[in-house]
This record gives sequence, structure tokens and C-alpha cells, in this order.
Amino acid sequence: MSDVVSTDPRTGRTAEIVAQETSTEEVARLCAAALAAAPALEELGRDGRAALLRALADALEGRRTDVVAVADRETALGAGRLNGELTRTCYQLRLFAEVLEEGSYLEAAVDHAGDSPMGPRPDLRRMLMPIGPVAVFGASNFPLAFSVPGGDTASALAAGCPVVVKAHGSHPATSQLVFDVLVAAARAAGAPEGTLGLVHGLAAGAALVAHPAIRAVGFTGSVNGGRALLQIIEQRPDPVPFFGELSSLNPVVVTPQAAGERGTRLGTELVGSFTLGAGQFCTKPGLVFVPAGADGDAVLDAMAAAVQGSSAQVLLNEGIAASFDRIAGGIAGAPGVSTVARGTADDGAGFTAAPLLLTTSAAQLPEQVTEECFGPVTVVARYEGTDELFAALGAMPSSLTATVLRGAGEVELPLAVSQELRTRAGRLVYDAYPTGVAVSWAQHHGGPWPSTNSQHTSVGTTAIRRFLRPFTWQGAPAELLPAELTDGFTGIPRRIDGVLELPR
Amino acid sequence: MSDVVSTDPRTGRTAEIVAQETSTEEVARLCAAALAAAPALEELGRDGRAALLRALADALEGRRTDVVAVADRETALGAGRLNGELTRTCYQLRLFAEVLEEGSYLEAAVDHAGDSPMGPRPDLRRMLMPIGPVAVFGASNFPLAFSVPGGDTASALAAGCPVVVKAHGSHPATSQLVFDVLVAAARAAGAPEGTLGLVHGLAAGAALVAHPAIRAVGFTGSVNGGRALLQIIEQRPDPVPFFGELSSLNPVVVTPQAAGERGTRLGTELVGSFTLGAGQFCTKPGLVFVPAGADGDAVLDAMAAAVQGSSAQVLLNEGIAASFDRIAGGIAGAPGVSTVARGTADDGAGFTAAPLLLTTSAAQLPEQVTEECFGPVTVVARYEGTDELFAALGAMPSSLTATVLRGAGEVELPLAVSQELRTRAGRLVYDAYPTGVAVSWAQHHGGPWPSTNSQHTSVGTTAIRRFLRPFTWQGAPAELLPAELTDGFTGIPRRIDGVLELPR
Repeated sequence: MSDVVSTDPRTGRTAEIVAQETSTEEVARLCAAALAAAPALEELGRDGRAALLRALADALEGRRTDVVAVADRETALGAGRLNGELTRTCYQLRLFAEVLEEGSYLEAAVDHAGDSPMGPRPDLRRMLMPIGPVAVFGASNFPLAFSVPGGDTASALAAGCPVVVKAHGSHPATSQLVFDVLVAAARAAGAPEGTLGLVHGLAAGAALVAHPAIRAVGFTGSVNGGRALLQIIEQRPDPVPFFGELSSLNPVVVTPQAAGERGTRLGTELVGSFTLGAGQFCTKPGLVFVPAGADGDAVLDAMAAAVQGSSAQVLLNEGIAASFDRIAGGIAGAPGVSTVARGTADDGAGFTAAPLLLTTSAAQLPEQVTEECFGPVTVVARYEGTDELFAALGAMPSSLTATVLRGAGEVELPLAVSQELRTRAGRLVYDAYPTGVAVSWAQHHGGPWPSTNSQHTSVGTTAIRRFLRPFTWQGAPAELLPAELTDGFTGIPRRIDGVLELPR
Repeated sequence: MSDVVSTDPRTGRTAEIVAQETSTEEVARLCAAALAAAPALEELGRDGRAALLRALADALEGRRTDVVAVADRETALGAGRLNGELTRTCYQLRLFAEVLEEGSYLEAAVDHAGDSPMGPRPDLRRMLMPIGPVAVFGASNFPLAFSVPGGDTASALAAGCPVVVKAHGSHPATSQLVFDVLVAAARAAGAPEGTLGLVHGLAAGAALVAHPAIRAVGFTGSVNGGRALLQIIEQRPDPVPFFGELSSLNPVVVTPQAAGERGTRLGTELVGSFTLGAGQFCTKPGLVFVPAGADGDAVLDAMAAAVQGSSAQVLLNEGIAASFDRIAGGIAGAPGVSTVARGTADDGAGFTAAPLLLTTSAAQLPEQVTEECFGPVTVVARYEGTDELFAALGAMPSSLTATVLRGAGEVELPLAVSQELRTRAGRLVYDAYPTGVAVSWAQHHGGPWPSTNSQHTSVGTTAIRRFLRPFTWQGAPAELLPAELTDGFTGIPRRIDGVLELPR
């Protein structure tokens, strides 16, 4: 077994040994404990799990200072961002408590026995049930909001599913600390032992996905990582659902009118978006379509000025820094691509990258510029007229987001751009930037491959659907039904004989 | 290219040459036409597609006599069953028209811009959108309700997705006739050309699943067939969702009290269920737990009497007949399994099978009895006491259904059985039989692997969710939003700022 080390990305030095990589036997023990915990976690009911989620949020907030300090030392994301991330993860836990209390997520439906054009129909009652223990893979770039706690864990627990997390190697100390805080809070809130588990190491992650007790997998990471886990799942005797959030280019279109009206401001804001968190967001704008001509030049000039004035940023780990050098270098060297500006480099021992602004013609986009590059780089593609723009948009890979920066009151071109990009994205953003994914009821963070492999979101309240499966009782006596499906229950929205009814 | 032949299973003889196997070029042409049709099909809107679905139903009913005659000649399922199946498929089309009009399926949600604990939140509006062209694989055993028309096609069209069907080789003439009827009706109803396509042949089916235009696949068939299609999908540059309904044992538990109260009747009814449609239902009860002792003997005796009095049944095709001989023979020859009764054989040239009743002890179930065997065979597992019963239930594979036949007012044992089987089924049936899957709002036809690979149903109104994906508009001007997401729209249920509202 190898040491699990926590590294300081600002210095490149090992800060501490956090743990040993989890053995296959220990993975199996945690999975068995999760399976054993499942009935009792479900038994807590919606109110019990809502209380559990709120207790977890309270506990995390109670250790805010410690958690942020460890996470900052380990990720260099900065105290401001990490405090915000902790707030986000607590908000998310509490929002899922509301989801449980509201109860729509159960999709409860009752069809009483009766006649149908096909003859007599039996009594049928359907609702969604927890799918069973879930494996969650922590993401490198969100140590608090997509890792041990975060959207996957919160939605799985809300659904009634025990969770075993694979800690990301970028922040094992944060993962272990936060895990310990959550486990103590869960125990105090009456959750069964085994509700939460944590494993460290790649081999442990592979063993986790292969374990028979695991009924679904949530993953945020690269396409290659996702493909590798999918292969393990395909080799199971019983392939299970895999929810992967994988790779996203996030194209942005600046219309000629927008460039004319506020080109300089857009340029500055675009740099703010693509360098936010050192460009380590899945919604980072990786390709920006800017019109040719003077108005577009103003956008590019403002971007160049902002990038030239920027300093090197610290990336999360050595692997990301090396990938950034390789992939950004590949884009910069692709045919027709030229470098517009670069921030100040840092030749220290940390894992740093200088922000990089590249440009090319939209008429001939090399393949490299349509692939995600994690880190502070973006490519500006200049387009001559809308034909050239639409030809380029038609070749875009699918992304989590697509963005249109419009002129004031402009509709016609934005509508056409929306229609072109709608089949290639999960969220269309107008007059704002794709980074920043609000947690809410109407959010969708997903999209066709390669952005995800899923028809479900990983952010927002509907993320819970990933960890549920429908179940129907036919002709069941009332004593054998969940309370939510019994006649006379009025606590949640239900569909009765085809008609949706609100709670009373 | 090879001939696509229609065979009469009652005689084993070729009845006609229906078509040529579809070439890869023609598959590509049909997929491109489906992709081109997608925007116009979506543009029809909910009302337009509701009218389309009703027109398809009317057209099918208008050709009822012809369709049933061809299907009966080709499948030997009998005019009674096939008339019922046509009624079912028309009912289903019309029910999805109601689903469209009701509008809940869109899951429309509006979060107005406002403050949140994480700072200002933008305006977010989410609803489900068609996923794009869908490949549907017709099933052998439902020439009208899970083939060219049927749950997959109806729900995909309702969702707004063009459909290319792979006709099943068991009923190509029926498939072609019904397809021609549907295409003419769709054209008359204003659907775009390319809304429906049909391919024949295994190679064409493989090419269909691999085609870039196809965005989801619906399949009803064997685990091996499903695995083969999944492999093709995994090799796509962009793996797409696969909804497979694969294999199901459908265990039945007869409680001691039920056996004591009505053992003879249960035995007779169980034979009716497992020989219905010559045992060619995905919900056929394949393993029946019956208590040891005199009460259980009465169940088995009644089953034996019914089976002995039965005649050979015609199976759908030569492959199914050969598989039945091989797999049922394997079960009959497994350790501890003995043959109780067999119906009268038919030594003609048709693809026939005599109903077969086997028995074994629940204490030691050989692996063979836990695998699905398509055709008229079931195994009765006798159990001594509940410990033995629960040990056996704990080893059951997942199924579409599980059934409990209870005594009058009996609760305790049925509850324990339900809890044991609930994680291994999609529908729990009480005091009835799993064959017969009503089309309704609360139906669920699904379950964990190997019964399906999906968290969605293939029967009932919620089947539409398979062919939709969420989409969110952020900060969109009203002119760019679908009508259902604009302020003031009140035609469908929507979630406004987290609160579910009914239409007004």
C-alpha cells in the first residue's frame, strides 16, 4: 500500500501523509456496510433525512475555519472562493432537505382499479425509491462542492442512498477532514453506521465501481477517466447507471451588435470568466466567437490587455499543470492559431500557469480548439459574417453550456444561434458568463456527450433523480404500501387517476 | 443483400419475401432524414403531436382486419390476442396524446432572478426537450405493441423524436404493413418526411445504433442482444442512452395460508399465466415458490393436471423453439430438478413446444432455474418454512416483477416477502399474476439488471422520460423562450420559484 500524500500546489512540496491507499478488502467492507445501512437510511423517511441533511450542513459550518484552511493549503483556490464553496455545499444540503419535505421528487401516482379500453385495470401505485449504495468520485476542482460533500453526495443521501466517496488525490486531507466531520454529525443525527464511507487511491476507486453492492456511480472528471470507469461497469455481471460529468468547451458567441455596443467591457469580463479559479471550471468558456472588424478588435484588445496584466495562477496539482502545458501548447501550435497575449509566468516550484489568450479564424477551426483544455486559456475565433459563424457552430462538440452575448434588445441573430447550439448544450446563457452554476430548482448542469453521458443534471434539485428508480405496487393492501401511496395521504403532490393534485 | 422472409410458425414454411435487408447506405439515408425531420416534428408542438398520435391510432384501427390477419399468419399468436394488442397500441398512442396535452412531462420550472445565500441568482428556466432521433428495436413477442408501433415509438414521437425502427425478423410483413399505414397517416397529419423509418436485418440494426444521428436506443430482447448493442454504443465517439428491457424471471411466492385457502385455484391460474402467449411474455412467472406439505401439493397437483391436459403451443420462430428445447431441457436436467408434467407434443413441422412443469427444492436451487427461459415452462420450488424461503429469495436475480399470492387479509409474511424482493424487482404484484402489464400513469415496467439497464419504464406514460433531456435557459429574453416557460403561461403544471402550480 502506498501513502496518500497531501501536496501544497503553491510550493509543489508534500505537506503531510494523510492516509494509506484503501485496500480492496477495506473497500469491500465499506460497500457491505453501505448496503447494510440502506434499509435504515430509507426508514428514516423524508423528515428524518431532511433533519440529517441539515445536521450535516450545520456541522460543516461549525468547522468552517479549519476546513477552509486545509482546503486552501491543499488546492490554492483561496479563502474567498473556498468560503463561498462551503456556503454553497451547506446551502445545497439544506435545499435537498426542502426537496424531501416538498415531496414532488417521489413522482407519486395512484391509478385506482377500473375499466380501460383494454379491459379491467388493477390498482397501480408508483413512486420513486432509492437505488441503493452510490459511489461518488470527488472532483479535483471543487474540494467542498463536488467531493466528499457536494451535489452528488447531498442528492444521493436525500434519495435515501448510502454513499461511498472516492477522495480526489488533489485534496485528500480536506476530504478526510470533511468526511470525519460528516460521519460524526450523521451518527449524532441517527443515521445508520455505513451511511458514509471514504476510500483513497485509484485502485480503490476501481474496486469501488466494481463492487456488487454499488448500484450507481456519480463522477466528475475527464472523458478518459469516465471511459475507464464505464469499462469497469460494462464488465460487471450487472452494469449499473453511471452519471459522468466529463468535458465541456462552452462556446461563447459575441454578436456584432454586442461587440459594437460594449466590446471593451465584454473583453474584460470574458477574461474574468476564463481565468476564474485558474480556468479550472467545467463551464470555463474555451472558445469565443468574436466578429471580424473594428468592433471585434475592441473585444480582443480588451482581452489582450487584461491577460497581459495578469499573473501566473496556481493550478490544483502537478498533473493538471503538465496537461495544461501540453494541451494549451498544442492548441497554440495548431495551424492558423496565434498567441495574442500571455500573463506573467512564475518560475517558482509551484504548479503554476500563466493565463493565455489565443486566436484563430472561425473559417477554419483546427480540431485542437474544439477540445477542452483545463486551465486559464481561451481561443478567440474571429468570424466574417453569419454564414461563417453558423458553419463553425455546426461543428461544435456538445457542451454543458453555450453563451450568447447580445446587443440591447437584439433577438434575431441570438435566436438563430440558440437554435443552432441548443442540440449541443444543456444550458443556454444570455448576456452573462457560463462560469457560476446556481443551485436551484430550474438549474440544469448536463448535456450530450462529451459533456456528460446522462439525461440528468448534477447541479440543482433534480439531481436527485439519478439515484432513484421507479417502483410500482399492484393490488397491494394498504398496510404494505409506503404512506405516500395510501389513499387519503395529502402531504405531497400526487397524480391520482391521471390528475395531478397539490398537497392539502 | 439477403431476402427478408416472412415465415409461418405453424408450418415452418416461408410465406413470402417481404423485402431486402436494408443496406448501410439506406440506413444512413433514413437516419439523416430522421435528423432533418427533428426540428419540424418539435415545431408541431404538443397539440400538433397529440393530433399526430391520434391520427396514427385511427389509421391502425382502420386497417385492423388486414393487420391482424398478417400478424396472425406470421406469429401464430391468434386473432383474439392480436386484436387486443392492436387495441392496446392504439390506446397507448391516444394516452400519450393526453400526456402531451397535460404537460407535466415537460417538468417546466422557472426560477426568477433573485438573491440566494450564495449571492444573486440569475433567471433560470428549465424544461425537458426531445433528445433527437431514436432507434427502436421491435420485439419478437409483441408484433403490434412493442414493434413498429408500441410503447417505444409512441413515447418517442410524443417526446418529439423521429423514430427509425429495426423490424424484428419474426414479423417483417406485419412490420412493413404497419409501417406503411403509419407513414401515410403521419404524412396526412402534417408530420415531416423522415418522422418514421424502417430497417430490416441484423447488420442494418447494428448500423442504425452506430449512426451519429441516433441519440437514444430503445430495445426489447435478450441480455445477449442488449449486450451486443451496448458494445456498439460504447464504441461510438459519443455513447448515447440505451434503454434495454432484457430478461426477467418473475418469481412468485405462494404463502402457506394462500395454498391452504385456495391451492387448487391458484395452481390452475398459475398455469394460465405461464402458458399465456405460449409463455412468450417478459413477465411470465418462471419460478413459483410453493410450500411443502399437503396444501402446497394441492397447488402442484392442479398445475400438473392443467399442464397434462394442455396441447403443444406454437412459438414465434425457429430460434425461439430451438432455444426453448435447449434451455428448458437444461433446467429439466439440472441437479435436483424433476419433471412433473408435460403437455401433448406436436410432431408437425411448425415451431411448437409442449408446456412443461418442473419442480425442485427451494433449499438448493440450481443456477439454471434462476435464468429466464422464454416459452411455456415454469419451475415450482417447494419450501420448508420461511427460513428456507427467504434464503432462496435472497438469491433471486432482479426481475421486472415479483408476485405474492396471499391468504385473505394476510399481512406479516407478505410484508417480509415484499421487503426481500423489493430491491430485486420493478413491480410487486399481490393476489394476481405478473402477465398483463396495464398501460397507465402509475405503471412501471422496469427493474435492475438483468431485467433492464434503465431507471425508466418502457410501459406507461412515464416512458416518455427516456427520450427527453433537460435544458435550461439562463437570462433569456421572453422572445427566445418556449411558450411553456414564459411568464404568465398557465396551460400546464409548472414549478415557479420552487412551488408547484397547477394549470389555471
